[in-house]
Amino acid sequence: MRMYDLILKKKQGGELSTDEIRYMIEGFTEGSIPDYQMSAMTMAICFRGMTPRETVDLTLAMRDSGDVLDLSGIKGVKVDKHSTGGVGDKTSLALTPIIAALGVPVAKMSGRGLGHTGGTIDKLECFDGFTTALSEEQFAGNVNTIGIAIAGQTANLAPADKKLYALRDVTATVDQMSLIASSIMSKKLASGSDAIVLDVKTGNGAFMKKLEDSRALAKEMVSIGTMAGKKTVAVITDMDQPLGRAVGNSLEVREAIDTLRGEGPADFKEVVFALGSQMLMLAGRAADEKEARALMEGVIEDGSALDKFAQFVRAQGGDAAPVYDTSLLPVAGKTLEVTAKESGYVHRILAEDIGIACMTLGGGRETKESAIDLSVGIILEKKNGDAVSDGEVLATIYGNDDAKMQAAYEKIAHAYEIAKEPAAFVPVVREYIFPE
Amino acid sequence: MRMYDLILKKKQGGELSTDEIRYMIEGFTEGSIPDYQMSAMTMAICFRGMTPRETVDLTLAMRDSGDVLDLSGIKGVKVDKHSTGGVGDKTSLALTPIIAALGVPVAKMSGRGLGHTGGTIDKLECFDGFTTALSEEQFAGNVNTIGIAIAGQTANLAPADKKLYALRDVTATVDQMSLIASSIMSKKLASGSDAIVLDVKTGNGAFMKKLEDSRALAKEMVSIGTMAGKKTVAVITDMDQPLGRAVGNSLEVREAIDTLRGEGPADFKEVVFALGSQMLMLAGRAADEKEARALMEGVIEDGSALDKFAQFVRAQGGDAAPVYDTSLLPVAGKTLEVTAKESGYVHRILAEDIGIACMTLGGGRETKESAIDLSVGIILEKKNGDAVSDGEVLATIYGNDDAKMQAAYEKIAHAYEIAKEPAAFVPVVREYIFPE
Repeated sequence: MRMYDLILKKKQGGELSTDEIRYMIEGFTEGSIPDYQMSAMTMAICFRGMTPRETVDLTLAMRDSGDVLDLSGIKGVKVDKHSTGGVGDKTSLALTPIIAALGVPVAKMSGRGLGHTGGTIDKLECFDGFTTALSEEQFAGNVNTIGIAIAGQTANLAPADKKLYALRDVTATVDQMSLIASSIMSKKLASGSDAIVLDVKTGNGAFMKKLEDSRALAKEMVSIGTMAGKKTVAVITDMDQPLGRAVGNSLEVREAIDTLRGEGPADFKEVVFALGSQMLMLAGRAADEKEARALMEGVIEDGSALDKFAQFVRAQGGDAAPVYDTSLLPVAGKTLEVTAKESGYVHRILAEDIGIACMTLGGGRETKESAIDLSVGIILEKKNGDAVSDGEVLATIYGNDDAKMQAAYEKIAHAYEIAKEPAAFVPVVREYIFPE
Repeated sequence: MRMYDLILKKKQGGELSTDEIRYMIEGFTEGSIPDYQMSAMTMAICFRGMTPRETVDLTLAMRDSGDVLDLSGIKGVKVDKHSTGGVGDKTSLALTPIIAALGVPVAKMSGRGLGHTGGTIDKLECFDGFTTALSEEQFAGNVNTIGIAIAGQTANLAPADKKLYALRDVTATVDQMSLIASSIMSKKLASGSDAIVLDVKTGNGAFMKKLEDSRALAKEMVSIGTMAGKKTVAVITDMDQPLGRAVGNSLEVREAIDTLRGEGPADFKEVVFALGSQMLMLAGRAADEKEARALMEGVIEDGSALDKFAQFVRAQGGDAAPVYDTSLLPVAGKTLEVTAKESGYVHRILAEDIGIACMTLGGGRETKESAIDLSVGIILEKKNGDAVSDGEVLATIYGNDDAKMQAAYEKIAHAYEIAKEPAAFVPVVREYIFPE
């Protein structure tokens, strides 16, 4: 078999066989197939596409390029959740304690963030002493005793994907649907869960800006998961503005805690409940969405979800006091209000610009080595559909540096799109994609 | 400027500017733009194409990546000739002495062959002592005194093309019209001639199998040459069978000499005359094709073309005796006849298979380091349109090794396509392409 022939075949619109895809990914991972051949292939794929069968084969070949975790030592149905990424997305922080409080095991690998805010692990470090450096035994032990553990990713999951993504990133071949879907799913399938719930974002702050593209990506991923033998469901959620009101690490932790107390923003709670319902149904804990929602309301009302969160923080070495008193969380020393320059209605909040404003404040990483300021961020006082009057506060900036706050101010003021006519209501949960 | 943005632009169907193309070729040549970005770009070009303006800019950028020869020290209008390559193509051997005998300077760079037979230089080494290792002074001196010199390529012509071609060759991106045209023309434009005549082959043994593709390539190259300020004409000639009857180094030299004596095969003579007419017209030596053909017939009839060839061989150190007695040329020790298995008419001779048969005999190079056996080859006794009877000789193999000759036999027998009905006559010169 020669890579040359595979490139030619794909270029001419042919379908690569399972063996050919495996040969290509194995050769690329070990280095016998050079970058310049792989980049020609990915460009050809951008023009010719891949069949569902090819996409599954690519996903499985990348999954098998590294470790595939075995979670069979953990009791119960393990349901993983993945978001395609957006601004203000603190869903895991609120969702996992709710699920765990309902007896569904949460055994999650998380990463640190590179971008607008930190990742889940960074956010959890708002609790003094919290660590994700768990041994395999501690990890499984915590899940089996208290129902929840979140570990940093130490395993070598899907290295082929890592290498391929780096190449696509510099050759303008990132935006191909099958390549995106197989990249995400190869890592999810390697992480050993029994079922997968996908949160596919759509809108200006998402990778997929158009609903039809988000739907296509969701369908592709659900198809891959299903063909790979995992129950998989996708929920398409709105990212035409940041999720919830808080953007920034400690502010987002506070909002997640508020939500566990029943006091969070409606849009954020709805995303948590939509994803949570699917997880509970896949785990066999609820028969339908109505039952799932009632169960989740229950653990919020009786405080057991909040207690589960505190238990989880303590089990991983953290000081859980802020769970019950959010004023103990890190908070920036200064605030600055962004006010409206006109009256009208908010039609759109450019999520990416809000994210960049947060990074500007020091709340995100520009490079892997950057330090994060957990205390800074933005609270969006007005969101899509809200009426605003000239001079009214749109957002509050929490920062520690006047110059950075001024730069953030400009970004945020520019991010708000305000018009005279009222804006149509857009539900935060747009669609569900189930296996066909 | 970033290569990433240029790839993205081309991928999305945009047109690269002159500056962008120059940035890309300069960066690629010096190594600051890596192979994996360039191969993604060439694949995108395969799908999106290039405009005539982009193609000219690519050609000129590649021309300027190395030496651009200055032939102004040589008197007269220098007309270069280039063939896209085929089997049995010994055109330069007969054409250049005819042109030189008519007073049009021939200052040619030639290469050694990699493939079915040797290149022009290999063939000329059938004359003992012949060398193409001329100093610049010797080269110009010979052209100015006897009107003809052929040198091995020592200058660093279009290194960007060399590097790009090597990359295209391993990433299945060779067959794109603009890339092919710019590759050929960048070298031609760097070699310093005043005008260019292109022999674009068409048919099963050519790079372009279909007439419409050959025509498109010819038009593209004529357009590039013209836009680059050189008078350029293309002649599309048939390669649905080898050219002439001889395939193999010394056999082809003999056929070229026969042609200079007025005894060569009709199809070969017609290609020589068609190309020669255009060269004589571009050089201002003939007013029209009729005059040009009469002039060429004249130097064949009076022996001055043959004498010019002998003079040229001697001037470059060779023993010219075989020019007047072709039995002195190297000849293989054994012959083997390929006979027809049925009666009918020859409809096609798969030229590439005949070429491979010649290489099998030892007459071509598989790698740059291979040695060539100048004495071996094939004489095609029957050509397209000829009637054959069962048992009649189709071709004669000249070889030095029984096993290799047997392998060549199989290839040649398979290469002949014979059918019951007579074959339509196809003229060897198919079309002329002039600047628009």
